[in-house]
Amino acid sequence: MAKKGMLIVLSGPSGSGKGTIISKLLAQREDTVLSISMTTRAPRPGEIDGVHYYFTSREEFEQMQALGAFLESAEYNGNYYGTPESNVRNWLAEGKNVILEIEVQGAEKVMDYRSDLVSVFITIPSMEELYRRLKGRNTETEETIQKRMAVAKRELQRAFRYDYVVINDEVDLAVERINTIIEAEQMRFARMDEDYIKGVLENAQTE
Amino acid sequence: MAKKGMLIVLSGPSGSGKGTIISKLLAQREDTVLSISMTTRAPRPGEIDGVHYYFTSREEFEQMQALGAFLESAEYNGNYYGTPESNVRNWLAEGKNVILEIEVQGAEKVMDYRSDLVSVFITIPSMEELYRRLKGRNTETEETIQKRMAVAKRELQRAFRYDYVVINDEVDLAVERINTIIEAEQMRFARMDEDYIKGVLENAQTE
Repeated sequence: MAKKGMLIVLSGPSGSGKGTIISKLLAQREDTVLSISMTTRAPRPGEIDGVHYYFTSREEFEQMQALGAFLESAEYNGNYYGTPESNVRNWLAEGKNVILEIEVQGAEKVMDYRSDLVSVFITIPSMEELYRRLKGRNTETEETIQKRMAVAKRELQRAFRYDYVVINDEVDLAVERINTIIEAEQMRFARMDEDYIKGVLENAQTE
Repeated sequence: MAKKGMLIVLSGPSGSGKGTIISKLLAQREDTVLSISMTTRAPRPGEIDGVHYYFTSREEFEQMQALGAFLESAEYNGNYYGTPESNVRNWLAEGKNVILEIEVQGAEKVMDYRSDLVSVFITIPSMEELYRRLKGRNTETEETIQKRMAVAKRELQRAFRYDYVVINDEVDLAVERINTIIEAEQMRFARMDEDYIKGVLENAQTE
């Protein structure tokens, strides 16, 4: 039976491990792709256009915004970020599941006008664990860590807007949990191939 | 993390194999029980009171109905059938998932006034397969089979009311699919232990 692609909105605080989870998930599932965002910020060392982001100018971004070409877009620290709608639409039409990795605010916007998506909030077992993870990166000052913790706390208070909450106590388990969610959601009546039900009923009539 | 019990409404046409699926599922999951219906019909040979049904008199049934003691109840072929609410409530409070195996009409009634349940429609891969299964039982006349097929078709047209549709092409796969649905539903925000989110947020404040 042909599957319909589903739009999966995935959020989680910095330190929740969502990057690793998504990489592992994509390596396991040929039916799932990660949407690439467009941004006006400058590429960081090692970032490749069309892989990590689509890099563009403010002018071009604003033109696309005016044309309604984004599924969601927002401005942070003076840079635009957005999800180009056409890619997402094409993948879904091909039957692929498309993951949007977006922060809570952007996610809520998408949820507000698309009822057909599946939203997953990835979280940490505890705030102490988040502190340990952020500290363990050895790349951030205590001040930055405290700032990230405050953001994580604010985001966690919005978790109730999501369909599912996945606790990342262990990466492979968390990946497995998202797999479970995808498999279950594919059994939703609304996502079934209409041809199946139609086929069963029509065959019934010819008997 | 403590799990909340969930109410699972399970329907499927005669011949969909739901009886076998439920038995296998219960054997695998200690956290799941099958609700036992009450009926006023006479026990069939081999049926045990309190195992297959609670057998009762019309008078007693009507008294319970008047007291609102049933989650749903209906009359078929001059006999009453109903799901006693107290058992279900107690199991859910213990954190058990409770399966209600009820036909489409009863299921729709329960769905109408309980938004916290999970509904699963078990179906057959095709009408031809249903015919083969009913025929294979060797217990039913062609007329009964045709009647059952007509009922199955009518029920299938109501499948859209259910959250999930599980196709029983192979029993063990179908059991696995219901397991997947239960595991995913346990990750719903609404079903999470409130203590987890509260705990994370409170610990955050004491840091």
